[in-house]
Amino acid sequence: MLGKFSGWDDTIAALATPQGIGAIGVIRISGGKTFEIVDALFPSKNLLQLSSHTLHVGMLKQNDTVLDEVVVSLFKAPRSYTGEDVIEISCHGSVYVQEQVLQALVNGGARIAKPGEFTQRAFLNGKLDLAQAEAVADLIASNTEAAKRVSIQQMRGGFSHALKDIRDQLLSFSALIELELDFSQEDVEFADRKQFYDLLRTAKEKVSELLKSFRLGNVIKNGVLVAIIGKPNAGKSTLLNTLLNEDRAIVSEIAGTTRDTIEETVNINGILFRLADTAGIRENTTDIIESFGIERSLEKMRIADIVIYIFDVHTTTDKELAIIVSQFEKQNIRFLLTGNKADTEDDAAVKQFLSFENIIFISAREKVNINLLKQLLFDATVNENALGQETIVTNARHVEALQKVQQSIDEIIDGLDNNLTGDLLSLDIKTCLHYLGEITGEITNEDQLDYIFSKFCIGK
Amino acid sequence: MLGKFSGWDDTIAALATPQGIGAIGVIRISGGKTFEIVDALFPSKNLLQLSSHTLHVGMLKQNDTVLDEVVVSLFKAPRSYTGEDVIEISCHGSVYVQEQVLQALVNGGARIAKPGEFTQRAFLNGKLDLAQAEAVADLIASNTEAAKRVSIQQMRGGFSHALKDIRDQLLSFSALIELELDFSQEDVEFADRKQFYDLLRTAKEKVSELLKSFRLGNVIKNGVLVAIIGKPNAGKSTLLNTLLNEDRAIVSEIAGTTRDTIEETVNINGILFRLADTAGIRENTTDIIESFGIERSLEKMRIADIVIYIFDVHTTTDKELAIIVSQFEKQNIRFLLTGNKADTEDDAAVKQFLSFENIIFISAREKVNINLLKQLLFDATVNENALGQETIVTNARHVEALQKVQQSIDEIIDGLDNNLTGDLLSLDIKTCLHYLGEITGEITNEDQLDYIFSKFCIGK
Repeated sequence: MLGKFSGWDDTIAALATPQGIGAIGVIRISGGKTFEIVDALFPSKNLLQLSSHTLHVGMLKQNDTVLDEVVVSLFKAPRSYTGEDVIEISCHGSVYVQEQVLQALVNGGARIAKPGEFTQRAFLNGKLDLAQAEAVADLIASNTEAAKRVSIQQMRGGFSHALKDIRDQLLSFSALIELELDFSQEDVEFADRKQFYDLLRTAKEKVSELLKSFRLGNVIKNGVLVAIIGKPNAGKSTLLNTLLNEDRAIVSEIAGTTRDTIEETVNINGILFRLADTAGIRENTTDIIESFGIERSLEKMRIADIVIYIFDVHTTTDKELAIIVSQFEKQNIRFLLTGNKADTEDDAAVKQFLSFENIIFISAREKVNINLLKQLLFDATVNENALGQETIVTNARHVEALQKVQQSIDEIIDGLDNNLTGDLLSLDIKTCLHYLGEITGEITNEDQLDYIFSKFCIGK
Repeated sequence: MLGKFSGWDDTIAALATPQGIGAIGVIRISGGKTFEIVDALFPSKNLLQLSSHTLHVGMLKQNDTVLDEVVVSLFKAPRSYTGEDVIEISCHGSVYVQEQVLQALVNGGARIAKPGEFTQRAFLNGKLDLAQAEAVADLIASNTEAAKRVSIQQMRGGFSHALKDIRDQLLSFSALIELELDFSQEDVEFADRKQFYDLLRTAKEKVSELLKSFRLGNVIKNGVLVAIIGKPNAGKSTLLNTLLNEDRAIVSEIAGTTRDTIEETVNINGILFRLADTAGIRENTTDIIESFGIERSLEKMRIADIVIYIFDVHTTTDKELAIIVSQFEKQNIRFLLTGNKADTEDDAAVKQFLSFENIIFISAREKVNINLLKQLLFDATVNENALGQETIVTNARHVEALQKVQQSIDEIIDGLDNNLTGDLLSLDIKTCLHYLGEITGEITNEDQLDYIFSKFCIGK
């Protein structure tokens, strides 16, 4: 595989930490000339003679110019992230210093890495399969417990293992059928058709389960979009603030995370609920709802995963609410009716609404039933049983390949039903194996890989 | 010194790399409980039994939850940046993951570090003196070769060494005078007054040299502010573009440095020339200059270190230029007259201006004489001889202390001239030593230190 990728022999370097001023910045360099290039800049020790997995403090110098006082971390092939010789240079967090160090590495013979190129090399060197490599990018982008957990699980090979079983069984079956072809004149059947049927049905079930997990996977990766709508003074912004204020992590504030990024998202049981994009809905639809001309706002609500319809239990009638509900149902919109300004369920005002389904009574101001509201939101949008599931598909590329796997399994079953000859069956099995291989990267081409890794950040 | 600082016994942790998404993020933890806290989260190895300066890959786990797959770098006291036990945890560059890891360290007994607290500990543990510690912050903020070089020189103790000589000699002299006091009834003179005069004169000269270097130090640290002004169509923006376009580093572009930050600065011989803040001048003053009512614009030009007055050699008369020059001179403004659209000095249009001083003829569009212009700018604002000087003062706090040192040396000399008694002389010498000690941190108090280190970034 090595020969066919351009730039494969190069030694590559990049800043691995985010751009900007910080205490330290880490520059990563990987490839055959790594030790030679860095050693030439590190006069106080002979790096080539030092052990892997050791740290060394010293001056980085180009000719007589001191570039910086740095710590170098040595990782010798194959015991590194990429599987090649790797050195990480921890320098002072000045953008200028980092550029100087990178420039010195380039002058020494390295080239600047493309986005994802370190991980691409890890894949090409067999340190990670493709699904695992993709999980690295997902992990970096993760912002909730569930998203982190799923990507770590996948990074450690969970998804690949689930597919490997199916693949191995199909492979051994394919081998038996190939064997039949060799003995075709003798009309023997090495591959037990009954057993093969069973295998295919199990595989199909497994693939279908994985495909089903994608709805949840998508929720985990991208969050749940919630629209809070209601008439003016129903308490929309009070509810929004109540939901937001209870969800500020201590460390987030200490570490200086910009408020903007967490401002309009709520983390419920490890899943991100995005209230972010609903501002437009909140602003524009109140008057429309008011005049019961909700057609236009429904269009907007449809992009949300769920709508919280908030109403004031003291100023709303059950007839009004029934009209709203019928509109939601007609448009197939998932909703949660939220009667606000209700102190207890025994409140006289609440009684008229008790026959409605998907309803909860809260007081946004007094923070009554807010946790229950969150739980209902979670239950309505997240399949908790599936959440415990070992393997969850989060990647659209994998879904596409799995759909093709499913389709090709159907074709093999069809073939068996119609007593297809061994050579044709064998072709169908190979198609199925091809699509399975596309997920883990046994089957790839350079363009496809470049596309997948180009979505990574520089330095990874 | 240890006992009196609050929070000194705590184990502290912080993100050491810039906030944001990157390939990796590094979390630094320092203090007595460092190994215990991290070991509890790192089940695959017993960190307490491993050697300093080694790297270990493994899962970071809190209870049964995987936080991330990380690399830990072990630095055992006193062989670390702070002089305490330090571990650096290199995790994936997700803000969420980093917060989780920090939270786990806090749960384990660490607290979030204050800005500069790691370097403050390095100072308190005697790893760096105060001037060296301050140079760390300067190095991180450096954005030119000269600024980097001066801060690395200071970080390695250059400035402190320069002061140490003076301090040591004063100290030994002070000791001799103290000795005289012990034998005061015998009227002996252990301290040779003539030798002391010489010492004081040398010290005063050295301090005065250091003080003089601050103008250059300030230029190195903060750059030179240049105002380019001139009539409309004189070629201001062409000149600006010509100056800017030649100064784009290759690596800057590759590493994705935002154009904004280098857009309006030019690096000449390693010094930053800031054209950044002159936009206002460029925009507002053209019409004012045109009507020769330059009073208001002069006010603005006075904040610049130098003014480039650019004029079209074909449409400007020597009389006009003489008026401009007289205004500059009256206002004590440093200027460089720049005749534009001149292809050669033999150009007929150029002749009338040849009697002016501080003048250069260029073609901004044809890029004629641009390097000469840069060199003149540099020569007019930067003392190149001083640039080669070993020790350059860049810190306003040091200047203040040096001025007090100078003043107290004068008082000692006065005292000697007036045959002051040994005990009074000794007091003056102690005052001088006090101010010298303030620079390197022998003499400090907690408030002063907190103030100095609070200007650092978190994690350093």
